[in-house]
Amino acid sequence: MASKKTSGKKVPQTTVYRMSLYYRALKQMLGNGITTTSSAALSEAVGFTDAQIRKDLAYFGQFGVPGRGYEVENLLEAIASVLGINRRWKVALVGVGHLGYALLAYKGFKDQGFDICCAFDNDPDKIGKTWEGVPIHDVAEAVDVLRESRIELGVIAIPEAAAQNALDMLVAGGVKSILTFAPGRLHVPPDVRVRRVDLAMELEWLSYHATSIA
Amino acid sequence: MASKKTSGKKVPQTTVYRMSLYYRALKQMLGNGITTTSSAALSEAVGFTDAQIRKDLAYFGQFGVPGRGYEVENLLEAIASVLGINRRWKVALVGVGHLGYALLAYKGFKDQGFDICCAFDNDPDKIGKTWEGVPIHDVAEAVDVLRESRIELGVIAIPEAAAQNALDMLVAGGVKSILTFAPGRLHVPPDVRVRRVDLAMELEWLSYHATSIA
Repeated sequence: MASKKTSGKKVPQTTVYRMSLYYRALKQMLGNGITTTSSAALSEAVGFTDAQIRKDLAYFGQFGVPGRGYEVENLLEAIASVLGINRRWKVALVGVGHLGYALLAYKGFKDQGFDICCAFDNDPDKIGKTWEGVPIHDVAEAVDVLRESRIELGVIAIPEAAAQNALDMLVAGGVKSILTFAPGRLHVPPDVRVRRVDLAMELEWLSYHATSIA
Repeated sequence: MASKKTSGKKVPQTTVYRMSLYYRALKQMLGNGITTTSSAALSEAVGFTDAQIRKDLAYFGQFGVPGRGYEVENLLEAIASVLGINRRWKVALVGVGHLGYALLAYKGFKDQGFDICCAFDNDPDKIGKTWEGVPIHDVAEAVDVLRESRIELGVIAIPEAAAQNALDMLVAGGVKSILTFAPGRLHVPPDVRVRRVDLAMELEWLSYHATSIA
């Protein structure tokens, strides 16, 4: 649940999530020509209380000036540094089915500094092609390609049955941070971090709340 | 952050998320012929502490027998009831691009009780077709189709620019719980609940941790 020590306190997972939301809201403010803001204005933009926002930011330092608020650009830079998106990341994609293709075409990755540099598939019709500017390689060559390209992040977009192989392959290629869309438990080496997106769980969050409304 | 009062305490968002994970682990146990379990065994399966697991379950009642643990089947039923997945839900999909098609083909939805009953697109080549057993309608007919089919949950899988229209259309069709993949802020009526999946934020969680490791 917690990780990364900063101000001495452990940072909750939900704080990291909210930092991403603050970043987006601040970016929009800057786009609208707003150069200073307050936790109250940020609260209105993201829907969390200003107390929550101040508490979240306090994990990482003192950003605002009491009575004057935050410089939007400074706060953006600070959050980018916290989230590790003040730089670009090389990402590999395993599996170029419908989901994989949707991810290749997803503009949001590049906008936040995530460059999908290579993709892997075992379909001979796809291998050797370039989709959305990304070359598709044979999975059999993955470990070499990953190492040569110095890939840091991996995304697994294939069915559950093949997911463990994909993970092992990414790890063998030097990738230690992996996002997976495959359900089911994976065996993960201790120095590798896996983030799982389970789309049915997102719908369960809705059914939980829809049930509590009824 | 919190919602649904149960044992008097508000249930944190992360507890709902963990309940989904417990459900999956218990289902796997049952599939392996395991009929009773403990918070310690569940802890091993999901990676959270047994104290956390007991605390999460306590929001919703008393499920285990001290010294004897949990009946897997009873606990599964109880969690299904909490999550609202002890019944089936009618889901509509807006947008049948690559992401939309991936969602149509996603087996995990049906497995958890979520039936995509209809899809909407504005592409004449797609309207009138049936993909993965799901009829694709013209978005212009959406409100009528949504009302006639008594759709409860909606999924938006289209670009940001069209997302507000899609949301308004779902709401006009009587849908009050919506999952969206489009970035950007949406204007949401007070009685409508929106769950957002921002895939770049999932990668930011990885870059945050990869940065803290370095």
